[in-house]
Amino acid sequence: MAFIISEVSSNKIFGGYQKVYAHDSKVLGCKMNFGVYLPPQCEDTKLPVIYWLSGLTCSEANFIQKAGAQRYASENGVIIVNPDTSPRGLSIPGDSESWDFGVAAGFYLNATQKPWSDNYQMYSYITSELIQLVNKNFPVLEGKQSIMGHSMGGHGALISALKNPGLYKSVSGFAPISNPSKCPWGEKAFNGYLGSREKANWFEWDATELVKNYNGPPLEIFIDQGSGDKFYIEKQLLPENLVEACKNAHVPAIFKLREGYDHSYFYIATFIEEHIKYHVKHLTN
Amino acid sequence: MAFIISEVSSNKIFGGYQKVYAHDSKVLGCKMNFGVYLPPQCEDTKLPVIYWLSGLTCSEANFIQKAGAQRYASENGVIIVNPDTSPRGLSIPGDSESWDFGVAAGFYLNATQKPWSDNYQMYSYITSELIQLVNKNFPVLEGKQSIMGHSMGGHGALISALKNPGLYKSVSGFAPISNPSKCPWGEKAFNGYLGSREKANWFEWDATELVKNYNGPPLEIFIDQGSGDKFYIEKQLLPENLVEACKNAHVPAIFKLREGYDHSYFYIATFIEEHIKYHVKHLTN
Repeated sequence: MAFIISEVSSNKIFGGYQKVYAHDSKVLGCKMNFGVYLPPQCEDTKLPVIYWLSGLTCSEANFIQKAGAQRYASENGVIIVNPDTSPRGLSIPGDSESWDFGVAAGFYLNATQKPWSDNYQMYSYITSELIQLVNKNFPVLEGKQSIMGHSMGGHGALISALKNPGLYKSVSGFAPISNPSKCPWGEKAFNGYLGSREKANWFEWDATELVKNYNGPPLEIFIDQGSGDKFYIEKQLLPENLVEACKNAHVPAIFKLREGYDHSYFYIATFIEEHIKYHVKHLTN
Repeated sequence: MAFIISEVSSNKIFGGYQKVYAHDSKVLGCKMNFGVYLPPQCEDTKLPVIYWLSGLTCSEANFIQKAGAQRYASENGVIIVNPDTSPRGLSIPGDSESWDFGVAAGFYLNATQKPWSDNYQMYSYITSELIQLVNKNFPVLEGKQSIMGHSMGGHGALISALKNPGLYKSVSGFAPISNPSKCPWGEKAFNGYLGSREKANWFEWDATELVKNYNGPPLEIFIDQGSGDKFYIEKQLLPENLVEACKNAHVPAIFKLREGYDHSYFYIATFIEEHIKYHVKHLTN
């Protein structure tokens, strides 16, 4: 009952199927869509899974249509699951007033402040309910999962991995919001969802702070960044802060700066093969 | 003066740049956008060009965002140009009442009926003005050009090649409307743009009819079709009619039926590499 899903769409691509499903999320209290790419190998065997978390303003559709990931998932025999970026359809007052807060801007945390705390529990949704739902419904190798994301979703991938040692075999971010406590996007979101900096522990949801106390199984942090990304230049992303914190905490980090690439899916499409291969290497070790 | 273009956007992808430009089209009497992918080889040398024509409801954006063609253009050293699908912004009465006629449904022909005939001249735009514009503004090997398209754009590619022997080195269509005189989409468009079947020569704009009288340089017709495409099943596309006409006219045809693929860009993304390599082979012979 708790794990019923209904198919919204199914399209054949690179020998497998790009599906979208809907389900009633208990954690979020609303109906949610998510994408699943099932490569052709699924017909014969169980496969590992990579979770993809999207950025501000996105639904599950953007990654499916623009990243070009299906080819590489098909070639490398991995399922890709990509959820939506916030609860939907709740009409909470103020949830649609800005593009960087509320709908499509859930920030992958568990809100503590009213009126958000009843539904904006994206962290629990991603790291628990969605994994169970996927394990129940698709031919996955349970426990063989990695996580990656873009911008706000890169932040989501990083904190999900750092807060759950061993849950994900590897983690990577495209232009992740790496130090949200110290950038305008993060400050706005944390203030709204968690309360003022003085009263709430923002550091529990900030990769650069979390890595300082990481003491789980060995985890490498793979950070990808375009040098022409205007949000990087405007210091919304701050990947250098995370790299420095990794260095001080003796957590290995890979930082790839891509000359001239911006914040768009054109950038993601160029490097998604490298990330998928990176995760598959960790998932099949 | 006649060939001034202005850059709308530029994004780095696969080492090259996906650009969108705007210009004032003399032939269409309105401002038009078009996409150009410039692979990295452009910096050193002139390259051949493939023109892509999109289908009903599309602008230049769909192909750019969803087909994943940039990787293959970069790997194979070819420029890809993709125009819009109709005149825009003219507010001709009736131009926005249906999704399969008027705006985003120019059908790549020259209209003869009022009020369409003043602006709906997509055939002349594609086969003449756009080529001149591209030749003037980008590092192309003049005359080294091929053409491909999807659905209505597959029809456009086919008639553009068949009506201009030698202009394009090769032609291919993804799920092309192959016999528009005999399908509902084509009948509606031809009736509106050209006048009633009895009075107008619809056959001048129908690939299956044009191929019967083709007597230019050797031309192979490459037709790609998904077997699960609902418009194929509903007989809007009729590729078998074109294949049969090719056979009777001794024009070589390749017909590839792709098991289970539909009409979407997921289908196109899967096979665009094969088409790009096909055209590059003809362009570099």
